[in-house]
Amino acid sequence: MSNDRLIYLPLGGAGEIGMNAYVYGWGAPGKERLIVVDLGVTFPDMDGSPGVDLIFADLAWLEANAKRIEAIFITHAHEDHVGAVGLTWSRLRAPVHARPFTALHAKRKMEEQGQNPDAVQIAPTWPQTIKAGPFTVGFAPISHSIPESAALVIDTPGGRVVHSGDFKLDPTPLVGEAFDPALYAEIARPGIRALVCDSTNVFSPHPGRSEATLGPAITELVQSAPSLFVATTFASNVARVRTLAEAGVAAGRTICLMGRAMRRMIEASVEAGVLTDFPSTVPVEEADSIPRQNLMLIVTGSQGERRAASAALSRGKYLGVELKEGDTFLFSSKTIPGNEKSVIRIINQLSEKGVDVVDDRSDAYHVSGHANRPDLMRLNEILRPRMVIPMHGEHRHLREHARLARAAGMGSLIAINGSMVDLTGDEPRIVEYIEAGRTYLDGKVQIGAMDGVVRDRIRMALNGHVLVTLIMEDDEPLGEPWVELRGLPETGTSKAPLAEVMEEDLAQLVGRAKRNLLSDDERLEEELRRAVRRTAEDEIGKKPEVTIVISRLS
Amino acid sequence: MSNDRLIYLPLGGAGEIGMNAYVYGWGAPGKERLIVVDLGVTFPDMDGSPGVDLIFADLAWLEANAKRIEAIFITHAHEDHVGAVGLTWSRLRAPVHARPFTALHAKRKMEEQGQNPDAVQIAPTWPQTIKAGPFTVGFAPISHSIPESAALVIDTPGGRVVHSGDFKLDPTPLVGEAFDPALYAEIARPGIRALVCDSTNVFSPHPGRSEATLGPAITELVQSAPSLFVATTFASNVARVRTLAEAGVAAGRTICLMGRAMRRMIEASVEAGVLTDFPSTVPVEEADSIPRQNLMLIVTGSQGERRAASAALSRGKYLGVELKEGDTFLFSSKTIPGNEKSVIRIINQLSEKGVDVVDDRSDAYHVSGHANRPDLMRLNEILRPRMVIPMHGEHRHLREHARLARAAGMGSLIAINGSMVDLTGDEPRIVEYIEAGRTYLDGKVQIGAMDGVVRDRIRMALNGHVLVTLIMEDDEPLGEPWVELRGLPETGTSKAPLAEVMEEDLAQLVGRAKRNLLSDDERLEEELRRAVRRTAEDEIGKKPEVTIVISRLS
Repeated sequence: MSNDRLIYLPLGGAGEIGMNAYVYGWGAPGKERLIVVDLGVTFPDMDGSPGVDLIFADLAWLEANAKRIEAIFITHAHEDHVGAVGLTWSRLRAPVHARPFTALHAKRKMEEQGQNPDAVQIAPTWPQTIKAGPFTVGFAPISHSIPESAALVIDTPGGRVVHSGDFKLDPTPLVGEAFDPALYAEIARPGIRALVCDSTNVFSPHPGRSEATLGPAITELVQSAPSLFVATTFASNVARVRTLAEAGVAAGRTICLMGRAMRRMIEASVEAGVLTDFPSTVPVEEADSIPRQNLMLIVTGSQGERRAASAALSRGKYLGVELKEGDTFLFSSKTIPGNEKSVIRIINQLSEKGVDVVDDRSDAYHVSGHANRPDLMRLNEILRPRMVIPMHGEHRHLREHARLARAAGMGSLIAINGSMVDLTGDEPRIVEYIEAGRTYLDGKVQIGAMDGVVRDRIRMALNGHVLVTLIMEDDEPLGEPWVELRGLPETGTSKAPLAEVMEEDLAQLVGRAKRNLLSDDERLEEELRRAVRRTAEDEIGKKPEVTIVISRLS
Repeated sequence: MSNDRLIYLPLGGAGEIGMNAYVYGWGAPGKERLIVVDLGVTFPDMDGSPGVDLIFADLAWLEANAKRIEAIFITHAHEDHVGAVGLTWSRLRAPVHARPFTALHAKRKMEEQGQNPDAVQIAPTWPQTIKAGPFTVGFAPISHSIPESAALVIDTPGGRVVHSGDFKLDPTPLVGEAFDPALYAEIARPGIRALVCDSTNVFSPHPGRSEATLGPAITELVQSAPSLFVATTFASNVARVRTLAEAGVAAGRTICLMGRAMRRMIEASVEAGVLTDFPSTVPVEEADSIPRQNLMLIVTGSQGERRAASAALSRGKYLGVELKEGDTFLFSSKTIPGNEKSVIRIINQLSEKGVDVVDDRSDAYHVSGHANRPDLMRLNEILRPRMVIPMHGEHRHLREHARLARAAGMGSLIAINGSMVDLTGDEPRIVEYIEAGRTYLDGKVQIGAMDGVVRDRIRMALNGHVLVTLIMEDDEPLGEPWVELRGLPETGTSKAPLAEVMEEDLAQLVGRAKRNLLSDDERLEEELRRAVRRTAEDEIGKKPEVTIVISRLS
């Protein structure tokens, strides 16, 4: 027993914001019993992952050690924490524990992927706990921008770990439980070995503001709007949707929710009992019978998502509603880095319609769901952990958070995805590096980020694609090479059709070729490819991707 | 003469920030003599223009009316104003006028594209002017983030127009001329018919700060840095490079410039006489002989450009220099929307090296080169134009700026690219819409944005590409269809190789096909394409791009 150890291993979410997936272990080295915390997704982009639907952590290591997994715990229902549960469960096959609201979402994720939703079990609230092998895990309520977020209190023979999940210190979150310092002081009483902690807002210098501070400003804004008022926020930010709806009602408006995700989230919140007094709303079909100055729409698409309601409204009539000169559109949200262009596109389209936009530059209409720097320090003071392991952040966030913790006298280090950290000693220590990567959901197929599939797509997008077909009979060309272009200009500097110039050059090459080249597919392909790229470089100044198909008749 | 009119026609830069290209005309409708102001580029991105090298305004209308063009005027040497001169000049063939520093850049652009640099003529400074048909044009010095920026004073029989160019109201710009209110009051004396005005910062509520305010804060920052200090900014922001270099010298450091664009810009500034007292620098080869705490690098790549010095340094050793734990890296710049991810990538890579990054969130180390809202109002008060036409902005900027001008009692409207505005009457009035679009430089070829070339690339990136070859002899298949995949997973839900599943499905289709289908290339291709997409949808949940090559032997 003496060499048993307590390990922490992030597989996703450490060194990035998104696709959270963390592992804890207790036992003899290499034989630790494991629990998994969160199985989230991150979203693709055209730059790095064109055509991909979702991205999540490469779970090869976990899958290889699936027999050691005791259970999976989901801290809250954001996509970057719960989104991959259904997609990955068949490879892990351990019970999934989550609080009721989160469990609703996790079950739906399971169903969507043809998995049995009964694998998801509804967890009780701390101080009640769940036994999982050598682990005893409790869900401690903590405030965040979605209901029923939890920090996990993880007891092991090696001591108590608190896994913060995503959190802020909000005394009045409006929906979901307030942050309760007394509860956390109680949790800290036996002593905390390690706090594994959200790092998102470590660079924000001021204490975070409460959700409750927003209502008056938003009400005033809605009141001052001369015509239709539209607000967008994250569908999952149930408290914000409520703040917006209540502000609308206070300003004498009828509320209409637009966007499937938002209606579903509100329904789930009511079903889970976390939302009991949401203002009454009208269905969108009735919206156009209400005078514009008496109507408020709350819509999806705060990040400029192309298919969400805000983008649809910015383009034209959507579900019978059309925005007009004099309408007001509020982004009650912060633009996530990378989404700026999409959001700006919508703002400009709204501008073309004469709609006044109140965007995210004003802090008056949005508060963050994550703990700022002073809030992180306050949690540290309450919990007094021996060590703080930063998670849920890019490298810059983890580094700054580790520095902050050390400055406050706690042990700390930067553990990015794949770093196995031994928490057993006086100081945290990286003991092994696991291969950590990304898995893409591409249509229905899961592919590795490094498989080359997406790399080929990017290359086609940057360079265009040339196809060459050549028919050979008895090692002699039958006819001439044929060229098709995709994603390339039709003519180059010679002003002759590019495909024809290539065909001539290839015909010459084939005509001059010796028999030993013509009989060797690999070499012949290579020669043809080189010739295509040379001609392209001359004619259009680009080196395209080339596919050669040599058909041999015999 | 009585129906002669004064027109303004933006072809680029109005409804976007980038690729500025404006036209003014005087004469009978449809026969106006024309001048062109600025011929700039904008930069491509993976989202909308993968593989493209540069983007500029579609000049088809100008080319069709090339004989009416009297001259081209370039306000300043930023790429979005001068970058397309060489690329487009052969289609316009009019003399190009620019102040000496700008002319240096314009000449180089001409040379790079094989055009005669003598087409670029060095313009005198206001009150001296240039005659161009019915126009008399003067370059009035105005402060901006590059030396020798000018507003154009355009006199016509229809009155005086001031085209602001890019500007700020800086009394102490350090390099280049200060904004001189007396000069502009003098320009306003005969009365200004129209001010066509930069709108970039119309949403910034506070008066702009001077370049001179930055020195002390940057000096203090450099002094407090324990080891190597690196700063990045736009290479063209010569004043900033000087501010940074002087701060470094004041902090007792030796200065080294890294990045071709930056060295070239400083050399051009010295050559043009706009920079006379730049601190002495050491070549990069000597940098590693200087103790880190005595060295300051000023480097290119403030926008995260992959090939610039900052990105290279963030990845590893570059030109003998390697960043280390304890070094400091300052972004003395603002991240342009759309570049956030690239900049953040560099910051995280620097974080991995232990480098402390001071980023653009602090306003202490950067000031904008554009006039803020109160500055726009101040210029209006000095010039008292009858009308203000907002330019150099996205739609939201133009709209806000037009609103601001109207609130101040001036005529205004929103004129986006392609809107021909008649400035002759009491109010500006759109009289015609010209087809306005974008041209892509793709390698060596200029293609229209709507030609479908780039659309095909984007589709290949999103959907992957399947190639099918089929050989036919006398309307009978010779062998079976052959499938090649590019950018697609190798296996789908059936776990069999995807290409083989497709080949089997296609072989069945061809085997069952009647002679009238087999003899009809177009229909046969369509059937094969549909079959490929159906199989792909079943197997991988995606509908790929498909190219079919049917070879007929006879």
